[in-house]
Formats: sequence, structure tokens, C-alpha cells
Amino acid sequence: MDRHSGEYYDEIERRLYTSVLADVMDDLGYRNQTMRHDIRPLFEGAKVVGRAATLLMCEVFQMPAEPFKLELELLDSLEPGEVVVLTTQGSHRAAVWGELLSTHTHARGGRGTIVDGLTRDAWGIIDMRFPVFSSGITPADSKGRLDVIAVRVPIEVGGVLVQPGELVVGDVDGCVAIPEPVEEVVIERAFEKVAGENEVRQVLAGGASIRQVFRDYGIL
Amino acid sequence: MDRHSGEYYDEIERRLYTSVLADVMDDLGYRNQTMRHDIRPLFEGAKVVGRAATLLMCEVFQMPAEPFKLELELLDSLEPGEVVVLTTQGSHRAAVWGELLSTHTHARGGRGTIVDGLTRDAWGIIDMRFPVFSSGITPADSKGRLDVIAVRVPIEVGGVLVQPGELVVGDVDGCVAIPEPVEEVVIERAFEKVAGENEVRQVLAGGASIRQVFRDYGIL
Amino acid sequence: MDRHSGEYYDEIERRLYTSVLADVMDDLGYRNQTMRHDIRPLFEGAKVVGRAATLLMCEVFQMPAEPFKLELELLDSLEPGEVVVLTTQGSHRAAVWGELLSTHTHARGGRGTIVDGLTRDAWGIIDMRFPVFSSGITPADSKGRLDVIAVRVPIEVGGVLVQPGELVVGDVDGCVAIPEPVEEVVIERAFEKVAGENEVRQVLAGGASIRQVFRDYGIL
Amino acid sequence: MDRHSGEYYDEIERRLYTSVLADVMDDLGYRNQTMRHDIRPLFEGAKVVGRAATLLMCEVFQMPAEPFKLELELLDSLEPGEVVVLTTQGSHRAAVWGELLSTHTHARGGRGTIVDGLTRDAWGIIDMRFPVFSSGITPADSKGRLDVIAVRVPIEVGGVLVQPGELVVGDVDGCVAIPEPVEEVVIERAFEKVAGENEVRQVLAGGASIRQVFRDYGIL
Amino acid sequence: MDRHSGEYYDEIERRLYTSVLADVMDDLGYRNQTMRHDIRPLFEGAKVVGRAATLLMCEVFQMPAEPFKLELELLDSLEPGEVVVLTTQGSHRAAVWGELLSTHTHARGGRGTIVDGLTRDAWGIIDMRFPVFSSGITPADSKGRLDVIAVRVPIEVGGVLVQPGELVVGDVDGCVAIPEPVEEVVIERAFEKVAGENEVRQVLAGGASIRQVFRDYGIL
Amino acid sequence: MDRHSGEYYDEIERRLYTSVLADVMDDLGYRNQTMRHDIRPLFEGAKVVGRAATLLMCEVFQMPAEPFKLELELLDSLEPGEVVVLTTQGSHRAAVWGELLSTHTHARGGRGTIVDGLTRDAWGIIDMRFPVFSSGITPADSKGRLDVIAVRVPIEVGGVLVQPGELVVGDVDGCVAIPEPVEEVVIERAFEKVAGENEVRQVLAGGASIRQVFRDYGIL
Repeated sequence: MDRHSGEYYDEIERRLYTSVLADVMDDLGYRNQTMRHDIRPLFEGAKVVGRAATLLMCEVFQMPAEPFKLELELLDSLEPGEVVVLTTQGSHRAAVWGELLSTHTHARGGRGTIVDGLTRDAWGIIDMRFPVFSSGITPADSKGRLDVIAVRVPIEVGGVLVQPGELVVGDVDGCVAIPEPVEEVVIERAFEKVAGENEVRQVLAGGASIRQVFRDYGIL
Repeated sequence: MDRHSGEYYDEIERRLYTSVLADVMDDLGYRNQTMRHDIRPLFEGAKVVGRAATLLMCEVFQMPAEPFKLELELLDSLEPGEVVVLTTQGSHRAAVWGELLSTHTHARGGRGTIVDGLTRDAWGIIDMRFPVFSSGITPADSKGRLDVIAVRVPIEVGGVLVQPGELVVGDVDGCVAIPEPVEEVVIERAFEKVAGENEVRQVLAGGASIRQVFRDYGIL
Repeated sequence: MDRHSGEYYDEIERRLYTSVLADVMDDLGYRNQTMRHDIRPLFEGAKVVGRAATLLMCEVFQMPAEPFKLELELLDSLEPGEVVVLTTQGSHRAAVWGELLSTHTHARGGRGTIVDGLTRDAWGIIDMRFPVFSSGITPADSKGRLDVIAVRVPIEVGGVLVQPGELVVGDVDGCVAIPEPVEEVVIERAFEKVAGENEVRQVLAGGASIRQVFRDYGIL
Repeated sequence: MDRHSGEYYDEIERRLYTSVLADVMDDLGYRNQTMRHDIRPLFEGAKVVGRAATLLMCEVFQMPAEPFKLELELLDSLEPGEVVVLTTQGSHRAAVWGELLSTHTHARGGRGTIVDGLTRDAWGIIDMRFPVFSSGITPADSKGRLDVIAVRVPIEVGGVLVQPGELVVGDVDGCVAIPEPVEEVVIERAFEKVAGENEVRQVLAGGASIRQVFRDYGIL
Repeated sequence: MDRHSGEYYDEIERRLYTSVLADVMDDLGYRNQTMRHDIRPLFEGAKVVGRAATLLMCEVFQMPAEPFKLELELLDSLEPGEVVVLTTQGSHRAAVWGELLSTHTHARGGRGTIVDGLTRDAWGIIDMRFPVFSSGITPADSKGRLDVIAVRVPIEVGGVLVQPGELVVGDVDGCVAIPEPVEEVVIERAFEKVAGENEVRQVLAGGASIRQVFRDYGIL
Repeated sequence: MDRHSGEYYDEIERRLYTSVLADVMDDLGYRNQTMRHDIRPLFEGAKVVGRAATLLMCEVFQMPAEPFKLELELLDSLEPGEVVVLTTQGSHRAAVWGELLSTHTHARGGRGTIVDGLTRDAWGIIDMRFPVFSSGITPADSKGRLDVIAVRVPIEVGGVLVQPGELVVGDVDGCVAIPEPVEEVVIERAFEKVAGENEVRQVLAGGASIRQVFRDYGIL
């Protein structure tokens, strides 16, 4: 399947989840791919799969000459299948994502947003069921508080280095980033592992010894 | 409209939200009016608008001679349209709000509660849909752990200085306080801005350039 | 009623809640029995009552010779009526509980899980309505990151010392542990206090003076 | 020796230290008597022994009618042999101790100050070698930021409950509080343990097996 | 005296201190001018007075095309009497100041450095007695970890907004920034207040009532 | 020179420092070798170089059957040139190092101690000038609070993975660990870089342009 098609992202969204992806990456030696646990979905059932369009933000202490300049450029350049991935480097001074940006991103074929930082207009985002993951919510706007200083560069999000274009996945457990060099094998093995887990689940539900199950299937 | 009437508070509750209020205050130079993002509503859809009846609490390490004395006096003096606004100054030793206090406050015409601190009896509060905002939930009672030392005085709640009688608003995005001197103009402009945002939303949903929209409307 | 029977746990789950249990223990001088407020239920309505089967975990920085060894032994030894109680001592490196372990525990008659640490597979746990309380959620597995070093020993969970076999209760307000020596009297008085609170609620809903109510009933 | 005499305090100051006092209290089952490790001496060699004159402070958000009222009353009532013990309950908004208060306290026979909070005028305090222990230093004054709400009451300092009149000891390792009921036995055993440690030190310096030493002396 | 001369800075350094400056600014209604208390001098006796040459730093996650570009430009543009004032916005990933930069700054007539962030080469800085204030020390270099994104702009340092050219003062108590509009009056009153404190100190050292002294002199 | 001889460690201690070692490792792509900045030397001038003898500690909540068992075994097995490297995984419940252990370690030829956790008996350790680095100081003993669960295994100390036998270096700037595979080249290049820095220092002290110096020497 074309790894840059909507079908590919939809298929992953439907059948995989972040914990199985994290397990497969662990086995391949990629052990730092899960974002910090305070980056949470805005609503129950939110799930996102797509390619990272990254933005790096920094606190500012005066109104920029052209507020939002780089951010708006990035948003107008969005391609279908992209996920906006943003970091404020730990700053919680203001929200850096909201409902109007979500509306625009959705209209351009963007699949969601992951923010290491705060968001706002949660009522509108939840209402349109646009999958946004963030460290929290605040009414405060970013204008004159935080501004984008670089786009489509490597950034650290929730403690994970995310490369532009990298596949990112978020669900109720949190978010993971899948490095390009192993993406194909990770997705392939994840589909296999999901099948195995379904079997294990059946056996355990029947009251089996968990030690026996772990010996037989090697997964938990 | 009478700025101390139930109709006034209801109208704000129905048509405005905290992010637009924060934006208008930002433009007027009041840039520190949004409370820290960990003060969250207890249930989805909770919204509160009213005048702050403030309480200042402090940790205690022995049982007070008359536990809850000042707090109960304040609660018996509540006027319709008031919102109980409480701070424990960061202490998370015990809950300082609960279901019985909510029942009383509701019976007296109080419109909700904002706590920089913990609450409890969440089951009962959620059940009666009384809008409570807090930094978290714990089963522990405040008796002999925290006590009110002053009422109807200025307090800092979630990093915002709140004056007694000031208009406070809370929704899914968090809470804001609106200083008396600008209340009238803030509310007026917020109604206008909400109208503008509705128009921008339509344009963006149609796939417009976000840079063009920002140039045309000046809002995001 | 047999204090080790399912009926006993069910009765407590149906009629009591953690805040009333905390109040009764406070009155008896047991004032440090409520766990830190960041240990939260995974879904609305989750409630757990049962006897603590404790596990103590520690970070590891290489793959153990036999990963999960002690943990699996404990899980295979679970008795009906037990609740798995786990601490990672503040480590948030990985999830130490998930959906397959929940399936197994449920099959063995376990009544729920309380984790001072992270969990994962929230989708599956929520789906089966198995009551899990934790400090957060992450996709990362514990294998090679955290391992159990002792089972059925005293541990500190959310700041509360929990003895193996001790009654633990969790609901929307959080979790409490009830020391064995006072369990009987605590449960008895809690049933009484619940009845009193119902009466107070009625009086307050009618608009009574809260000072008068506090004088008359002594509870809030 | 008179347990309220300067000779008694001086003797303890000269010959004992906080770690040996903590060990002896541990053995007696008093295991929560050492204050949080961020309460540090202002200068090398600072050491304090005396009876706690306690003050409880709380943040305020307007200028009090009579700033410092209770604090000054306490300071004018100080007896020789007392140590001022203060908590701001975690607030770091301002310094609550300084050089002029130190000068006064020293003139009245006070032996030092322990602050769970910040201090200032460190230059002057260091210069007069008055033993002050605090959580940090700031130039900001407490006037209109923090005020004393009770004196000579039980308070929690660095996580330890301190009763008025209780013996407190601070040195380079930190601070401890010694409950009145065990003070006599603690001091007595501490003198003995110090002697034992001197012997162990000699043996270990000679290159002995530490397992053998621990078996022989039971201390480390 | 010329407020931009070395004599002016020297005089302040010799005779004033940060706590008295903070007090005078408090009285003038400038109550947020003292930096967070974790910004500490690198050695005992370090004191700095001068005009802020500000730098704003941001985390980066790849090697910049020209590392240190803006920083070096600023350093080559330093004027005598300036103090380098830097913020990393809370990032502790690497040191942003060191011994070679200190050597250069000293050679150019710079009077010191205040860093809301980490420094390194403490041995060399201490050895040359160049007054550096920072939030801590680490061996890690900033290259590819943090980079300057703007110079001579308003920045927030330890929670205080610092304007370029503003007078900053640091000593053992911490650091303050003095806004330009009030600089003249602040310095003038501070000299007066220091004289008053010397008198009060004498009176208190004689054992006077502190309440009486506060009534007579109005300072503490 | 023999990389396991006292001469080798002494030479590094005399002529190198942690910041230059961190720089060289950065250039080789080892960018996570500097420990968190809160691990500080106990006294001015403390410096340590040697091979890591690692201990992993965990909180316990009852007295172990044989307290200190593994720890004492490790201490009796110490070889000259070793440095005790300990982590409590963030626990600050008690001190895990003290004066008697220092005396023993020194007697056995151990060169120092690095603790991600607390220490005590600072008076004695400072007095004997034994180089101990720790996250803080407390009088509380570890007995029944923390116990060693593994020795000579890989551990994480201040965020750095340390292998047993790895070279660790600590000075006023903090601590670094040097991975075995690059130790030889790191030490060699560090000696060269120190020479270069001495030259740069001279040029800068003469008032040179820092941009020119950076272009000419490539170091800062």
C-alpha cells in the first residue's frame, strides 16, 4: 500500500494502536519513541495517524512585527495526510492551537494536531471531532506570548525527537513517532502482533495461567 | 442590561466563552486574567458566570476552635448571582469543597464554584450538574487541615488576582476574571468578536488561505 | 457479614464512597489514608473495593533475566476479592498495567487495580469496564524499564502505607486504604454517616442556614 | 543538666549532630523528624540548638491593616534559648526573615532561625554569624505578600510537625525536631552513639571489612 | 552623577544591596522586580551592577547553520557598563555561559552576567572573580542544544520583565531589575533607606522592643 | 599510560575538567553523557576520577531481613581506582551515603562517590576532603527506607546511563560518564582541546573580536 495515501493512514487508524507500535519499536531497539504521558487527547475516541508537519515555538515578550508569520505559512502549505506537530518547549503561558486553526487544517486535509503545550477553544474542536492532543487547555491566546521560530525542522515533542515527515500516531494511550528507516517493518510487525494479542486475550479470559501464556506466546 | 441580574449572567453563559473574553482583555492591556490551566471543570459542559465571593484558606496543624467558622458565615451570606471563589494557596492536603456545600450554594442562588485547590464528592456534584472548577479531587476532608482565614478579600486564584465582586467566567477552556473597570467594554466587544469568529470559521471551512483570512479579519 | 466475601465488597461498592470512609478514619485518628489525588479512575463510574495484593516495582536499565517473573507469580496466585495494588515509586518511564493483565485478573476474580504509576491499553480496559486507577497513561511497555522486586509486602501508594490484605476502596474521588485493626468499625460508622448525610442534603436543599445545619448535625 | 539552660543547648551544639539524633529517633519509632532537605544553613559552620518559637504565615494579596502585628509580638516575647521556627507553607513570594530581625532575636537571646520559606539580607546574617536555615534567599520583602496568622501553635516545617517549645537542632546536614516525650532519652542515647561512631571510624580507617564492622558494632 | 558611568555603577555596588532596592520599588508600586530565587551567584561576594544587554535563547534540535551567530554579534557589540542578561526560558539542557565568554566580556568592560539557565567552567569564572549569576551549573555545551534567537529585546528573567538598557543589580540575596522611569528616584531613596537601616540596627542590637522600633522608624 | 592505574586517574584529575570532556564526547556523537545539574560536589574543590562501581537502590517500607546486605558486599569488594556510583531513582526519603562509608571507601582505595540521591554526615566528609557528589543532604538514615537491590549493573544516574567499570569524572561543573568504547580517544582529544582553550583565553583577554576568535579557533 502507498505509504503516503489516505488509505494507508486510515488502515493504521482502524486496526493498530500506540501500545503495539511502541512494543514493536522497543524490540527493534527504538526505545524512546513514546511521548510524555501528559500529552492527552481532547476527547474520548480521538485518534490520529499521519505525517508530522513540525513547528518550533518560543516565548516572546513583545508583540512580534508579524505575529504568526511562519505558522500561517506552514498552515497554508499543509498537504493532505499531514499532522501538525508543535512544541512550546514546556511553556504554558498561552494556547498555541484552537478551533479556527483546526477548521483550516481539516479543510486542507490535515488529519490532526499534537501539541507539547496548551490548546484552547476545546468546545469547538470537540464539536467537530478533530483529533487534537495537548498538554492542557487555557483560554489565553499566544499572540505576543509565543511565536513560531522554525517550521518543518526536527523538534522534541514530549521528550521524543520528531523528524518532519515522520509518521506519528496518537490514541487514548498517548502518542508515538515512528522513525522513517523502520516505518515499514514496524507497521508490518504491528499488524502481526495485534493478531497474536487477540488470541492471548481469549486464552486469558478463559482463566489460563498467565505464566503459561507468557511462555507460550511471549507477549503481555 | 442590569449587570447584576440573572439574565445578564445567563446571556454571557449562553453566548460567550472564556477564550474570546481573554482575547478582548489582552487587547485592552489586561494580559494576566486567565487562571492556571490545571483548574478544570468537574464535568463536560460545566459553565459558570457570576460575581466572585472570595475565600482565602490556609493550612492548619491542629483542630481550630471553631472549624469552618468564617467559611460558613460567607456561605450563609451568599447572594444570588455569586460564585464561590476559593484558594488554598497551592495546598493539596484536603478537599475544600464538596457536595453538601454545593447543595447549599445552589439553594441560595449561587451559580458555581472555582477552587484553586481540591474538591470532593464529585459523584454528587456531577449528579446535580453544579458547575465546580478545581485543581483536582481527593476524598480527604479539610477539617483540621485547611481553614478559611479571610472572606471577601482580594485573593490570587490560579495566578490571577481576583477582587471580591469581580465577574468570573469558567468553561471547558478554563477560567477568567474580568476586572470591574473594564467589564462593560469587555462584554460588549466579546459579543462583537464572537460574531466575527463565526464568519471566519465559515471562510476557513471552505479551504481559504489562512494568511488571507488573517489579513482580512485580523482574528484567529 | 463475612468480611472476605463478594457480598461484603459489593455492599460497600454500592452504598459507600471514599469521602465518607476518609471522614470516619479521620475521626478515629487515622488521618493519612487517602492516596495522592493524581491517582485517577480510567473511566467515569469506575469503582473498586477489595483486598490489596501488593507489588513493589523498581526501574531497571537492562533486560532482566526473567522479565515479569515475580509479577506473573503474583497474578497466578490471585484470590477472588483481591485488588492488584502497584507502585513504581514515582517512575513514569513505562506503563506497568494493561489490558491483557486486566483480562487475566478479571478471569481470576480480581476486582480491580490501583497503580501509583502509569497504565496502558486504556481502550481495552475501558471497554471491559475493569476498574483501574492510575497516575496516567502511556503506550510504553515496562519490559526492561521497570520490574517487580517484591510482592505481598507493605508498600507506599500515593503517599499511603498499604499492608497486604488491607481493604482498599476507589471511586471518582480517589482511593483510600483502611487499616485492618479499624476496618470493622470504619465500615459500620460509614454506613451510619451516609444516612446522616442524606438527611443533611435534604435540609440544605431547602435553603437552610448552613451554620444551623452544622450545629444540628455536625457534618458537612 | 537543666534541659532549659544555655549550657544544655551549648553542650548539644558542641557534641551532637543531626544525623545521630535522627538515628536515635528512628530506633525509638519516631521516623518522621527530619525536615525536607532544601532547608539549608546560610553559611558554612552554622549550627543551632534551642526551643521552637513557632510562627505560621499565609499569603496575603492586600496590605494588612497592621503588617507584621503577630510576628512582632512574638519577637518581643522571645525567651533566651528559643529558636524562631517559621513556615510559609511552601510560598516563595517573598523573604520572611532578614538581618534586622536576626539582630533583634540575637539581642533577646534567641539562638537562631529555621524557615520553611525564603530569607534575605544574607550578607548581614552571615556577617553576624547568626545561624539561619531556609529554603532559599530573595531580595523581596514580605510586606503585603505574606503575614503571620498564628504564633506558638503546632506547624509543619519541611514536612515535620513541630510543637511550640520542642527542641530543634540544625547543622550542615539539615534540621530535626525532637518530640518532648522522648527528648531526654534521645539526647542521652545520642551521646552514647557518638562515642560508638568514633570507635567504628577508627576501625574502618584501618581498612577493616565493613560487613565485619557492621556485625560487631551494628552501626553505620 | 552620570547614570551611565563606571563611577555610578561602582557607587551602587559599594553602598547599596538588592533588598533595599526591592523595598523602595515596592513602595513605588513596582512589586514584581525581584528574580526567582534559584538564580544564584557563582561565588561568595559576587556582586554586579550595570545595564542589561539581553539575549533570548531557544532550544534547537539540530546544529544551526551558524551556531552562536547572534550571540557573538551581541558580545562583540558590548559597551563598558553592560551586564549580559540571558534567558533559556527554563531549559536546563546545556550551559549557555562559560569561562571564555566571561574572559571576553570582562575584556570589553562588561560588568557581569545574569542567566536564567545554566552556566559552566565555574572553576575559571570563580578564579577570575567575574560576577556570574545562574540557575545552576552543568558541563554540557549549548552548541546544537540552545541558540540565541534575538538580542537586545525585552525578555523575562527569573519571572521579571527586563528591558534592554535597564539597570540590573545582583548580590548574595539575588537579582533585581530597576525600570528606567523610576531608576533615579529608586537609587536616591535607596541611599536614604540604607542610612535609616544602619540606625535601626544599632537600636535593635541594644535589645529594644521591635514593635517600638517599627513604630518609630517604619522599617524592618 | 595504563588506563587502570592511579597515575592515569591522577593525571586526568589534574589536567582535565568535565566541560572539555563533554565537548569532546559531543563531537563524537555521545551527546547524553552529562548528569543532571542538581548532582553537586559537597565542598569547593572536590574532584573525582575513577571507574564506576554501581549500586541500584529502591525504596522499602519495612525493615529488610538483612539491611545493607548487597551494599556492604559491594563496599568490601571495592578495588583501588573505583568510584561508588549510586542511584535512588529520584527518592529523597533518606541519605544513602555518609561519613563512615566514606572512611571505609577511602581506606580501600576508592576515589570518591557520586549519588543521584541524598547524602549525610557532610561535616565528616568535608573534613576528610573525600569527594562526594550528591543531589542534597539530609540527616535521615536509609535503614528501612531505601535498600540496594543490585550492584555492578547498568544504572541511570542524573539521566545518564552508567555501565559498571565506566570512567566517571566529577568537578565543580558536575559529572560526566565516558563510555568505554571511546574512552581512549576522548581523553586524548580532551588534552589537546585544553591546550587550545588556553590559547583562546589569552587572545580574548586581550580584547579580540569573539567572532574572529571563533572563526580562527572553532572553540568557545
